[in-house]
Amino acid sequence: VNAAYERLRNRLADVQSLFRLNMLLFWDQQTMMPAAGSATRGEHRGMLERMRHELLASDETGRLLEELRPYEGSLDPESDEASLIRVARRDHEKAARVPAELRGEMMQAASDGLRTWAEARARSDFARFLPALERHVELRRRYIDCFDSYEEPYDVLLDEFEPGMRTSQVREIFDELKAGLIPLVREAGERDDSDDGGLDGPFPLDRQEVLTREIVELLGMRPETWRLDPTVHPFAGGAGIDDVRMTTRYSEDHVDSLFTTMHEYGHGLYEHQVARELDGTILGRGVSLALHESQSRMWENLVGRGLPFWRFYYPRLQEAFPEQLGGVELERFYRSVNRVRPSLIRVQADEVTYNMHIVLRFELEQDIVNGRVELRDLPQAWAEKMDEYLGIEVPDDARGVLQDMHWGGGSIGYFSTYSLGNVMSVQIWERILEDVPDLEDGFERGEFAPLREWLGDRIHRHGRKFLPLETLEKAVGGTIDAGPYLRYLQQKHGTGALAR
Amino acid sequence: VNAAYERLRNRLADVQSLFRLNMLLFWDQQTMMPAAGSATRGEHRGMLERMRHELLASDETGRLLEELRPYEGSLDPESDEASLIRVARRDHEKAARVPAELRGEMMQAASDGLRTWAEARARSDFARFLPALERHVELRRRYIDCFDSYEEPYDVLLDEFEPGMRTSQVREIFDELKAGLIPLVREAGERDDSDDGGLDGPFPLDRQEVLTREIVELLGMRPETWRLDPTVHPFAGGAGIDDVRMTTRYSEDHVDSLFTTMHEYGHGLYEHQVARELDGTILGRGVSLALHESQSRMWENLVGRGLPFWRFYYPRLQEAFPEQLGGVELERFYRSVNRVRPSLIRVQADEVTYNMHIVLRFELEQDIVNGRVELRDLPQAWAEKMDEYLGIEVPDDARGVLQDMHWGGGSIGYFSTYSLGNVMSVQIWERILEDVPDLEDGFERGEFAPLREWLGDRIHRHGRKFLPLETLEKAVGGTIDAGPYLRYLQQKHGTGALAR
Repeated sequence: VNAAYERLRNRLADVQSLFRLNMLLFWDQQTMMPAAGSATRGEHRGMLERMRHELLASDETGRLLEELRPYEGSLDPESDEASLIRVARRDHEKAARVPAELRGEMMQAASDGLRTWAEARARSDFARFLPALERHVELRRRYIDCFDSYEEPYDVLLDEFEPGMRTSQVREIFDELKAGLIPLVREAGERDDSDDGGLDGPFPLDRQEVLTREIVELLGMRPETWRLDPTVHPFAGGAGIDDVRMTTRYSEDHVDSLFTTMHEYGHGLYEHQVARELDGTILGRGVSLALHESQSRMWENLVGRGLPFWRFYYPRLQEAFPEQLGGVELERFYRSVNRVRPSLIRVQADEVTYNMHIVLRFELEQDIVNGRVELRDLPQAWAEKMDEYLGIEVPDDARGVLQDMHWGGGSIGYFSTYSLGNVMSVQIWERILEDVPDLEDGFERGEFAPLREWLGDRIHRHGRKFLPLETLEKAVGGTIDAGPYLRYLQQKHGTGALAR
Repeated sequence: VNAAYERLRNRLADVQSLFRLNMLLFWDQQTMMPAAGSATRGEHRGMLERMRHELLASDETGRLLEELRPYEGSLDPESDEASLIRVARRDHEKAARVPAELRGEMMQAASDGLRTWAEARARSDFARFLPALERHVELRRRYIDCFDSYEEPYDVLLDEFEPGMRTSQVREIFDELKAGLIPLVREAGERDDSDDGGLDGPFPLDRQEVLTREIVELLGMRPETWRLDPTVHPFAGGAGIDDVRMTTRYSEDHVDSLFTTMHEYGHGLYEHQVARELDGTILGRGVSLALHESQSRMWENLVGRGLPFWRFYYPRLQEAFPEQLGGVELERFYRSVNRVRPSLIRVQADEVTYNMHIVLRFELEQDIVNGRVELRDLPQAWAEKMDEYLGIEVPDDARGVLQDMHWGGGSIGYFSTYSLGNVMSVQIWERILEDVPDLEDGFERGEFAPLREWLGDRIHRHGRKFLPLETLEKAVGGTIDAGPYLRYLQQKHGTGALAR
């Protein structure tokens, strides 16, 4: 083995560990930490991120990468070694362009901004959040200035979440989504679904907690490698491929906890099935947010909101909630958890309207970065787009522009990955059905191993070896394409579909 | 403010944060982590410890300390600034003597050794643990060789846990303890206490969990700064002075969880009441294990096994366990939780015999370090001392030499701090009673603020500013002295005392 390669690998193992520990601290913060610990937690997380950035950007890392050029040329580009060097070079070159002070300021602003955002949201007062947002945007302008090879400035922000993706590519996909979805949304808005409900709680929390755990076991993950805890804004993370921390949220009013759990299971499984050889290296995690979301949305929607799954699991759900669901037929339940109805809040939106929430944010973010909207006018711009895309009136800032935490922490460029993930999920799904035609028959018998294994083999094991679209290409044999997703939504939610 | 001082302080803030994060990872490991995460956890903790050591030992830290010599001379030695420089110099000089590779080997051996120890203990097979112990001892010999200013080699190991303490000082204290305790233990062994019980369970765990939480609230800690979780080997730690993590353990057979909680509360309160100005600096935590133990044992024994506390709290306990304790009078309960009886297991020992378990380990450790005992003969040496000091026969290794995890991880030099803490606790207690004569009257009304505040003001707030015995001196006006402790034990547990 090449000695310089070993040195690079070990050095970057610390980069990965620092990243993992930061994820674990985030998990702890959201699930376990006493509230008063937050100030110190911000400092600790900032330190880990600073150390990670310094190691990655350092001259020594650059020197090793230079030394490794001839060796790299001798390797199979698909090998773990070549991939590690390639990804390390990309990470290093990006990090080295950004001064450590700017990184520090961004981290500090993220921490401060989230606190300000939470206060502003509680008071539904955008003006209170405005200075923090101005600060975020100013820092992002400075960050963009560190780079020069982009088609448009927004590319630089997008690349943080979706490496290699261009704004123009996203815009093309999203234009196609808009063209297909706006009629579907309008149709749903005009339909009278008032009788389609039927899920009357309360659904006792302790029984939901038993079920969510049972669902993770049913979908399948190696025992003693995971936890599931309640939190306010669910997410999945973890400290390693055998230390997966999923979260969900419970309400007596509905059984959304089950779908949230399946969503976070999708994220968790992706991290869990990264190849063991990559564990502990900078390649040892999911490649991008869109690929991650393709996994979470697949388990949540394509598995979890599908009839085959519920043919197997609905009896168990009825058994857990006999008073609430004993008299509700499977198909009524299925329609209820698939109802399409324009609404104010992204995280509560159905499969169809969800994407319009994303399109709206993606467009506003570009306007922000390109200076086409004054930040103080953002609530109004938001309201106008909500009216245009969903026919919904925004009653206040809390349920409008302040509803998501992303901008609170300065994460501009993140949102589009949600819909990109939706689009990818159906492309992948169609490909799996070609390879495993009886996949959904298996679901009706509670068998999920074929899906897990296909995903592990074709996507998860690669970790960060290839760029997101390269990873997708390896799985489905083509690039990102909105067609399958739009057909799926039309089929499931268009006129005459069962879910209606 | 001096610029070099600022640089040193910031640099060492990372040292403290890395230490804190390692504590948090330990907490997570013992309470939350999925079992399969342990391999990765070992690597992550090793990385944090390596980074901490490198920062502390680095030439740059040494250079700053040199640069600061004139400035240090201009400061009040009791000031935070002077103390930080003084403690930093001590920490740096110690760290710089130890090669990073040796530190790494010790960390790795600790992790491996603990696993081997757990296996050996499960099989009650000392021979299985022997190679790991040999490795620990060899590494500690190499560690001792890094130093030269000691009276005897064991000093170097002791200093890791009790900075500045000499083996000869401990030996003197322990000789005094032995002289006082052996007769007291013999007396207890000969006494027929078979009727003194009266605590018949089962004590339902859910009710115990309510009570332990209630006790932390009663004794008092700022809200939203702490958690209390179950674990196998209880400890207290945390990520900051406002993020205190206490643990306890529950069994249906008894109510020891209450005393364990009070013990860990004592540790937690110490960390919690360190001066805010010191938080985040290398001075911002408890100064030593003995001082820490003086706090935990004080709350556990001097408060928690005292009649005044139970005059207040026993009705509440009876209310929680009406079937179990409704018919048990306060004094019978009090005697029961204070019963002295020689036994095999240190962590289950009463106040009196506990110290003989410690004396035994302290003596064996010196024999190990000085080569006066062959490691393979340790089980026999253990058995002989158990017979001599407690009149107890050791049935197997699991309940003998393998019972504690400390040697498993190579922590030689740790045990004596438990008894030093006992000794200090009564010295401090007597001094508090001089200052607050009605302290225990307050307990009978559920008032613990005067004790908390005295401890905070006289001990906790100093953090690591002064050496352990200097810290004790500031609190009690003298050095360590076994007299008060022996008098206390005699009074409470000798012939004619109520606790009998």
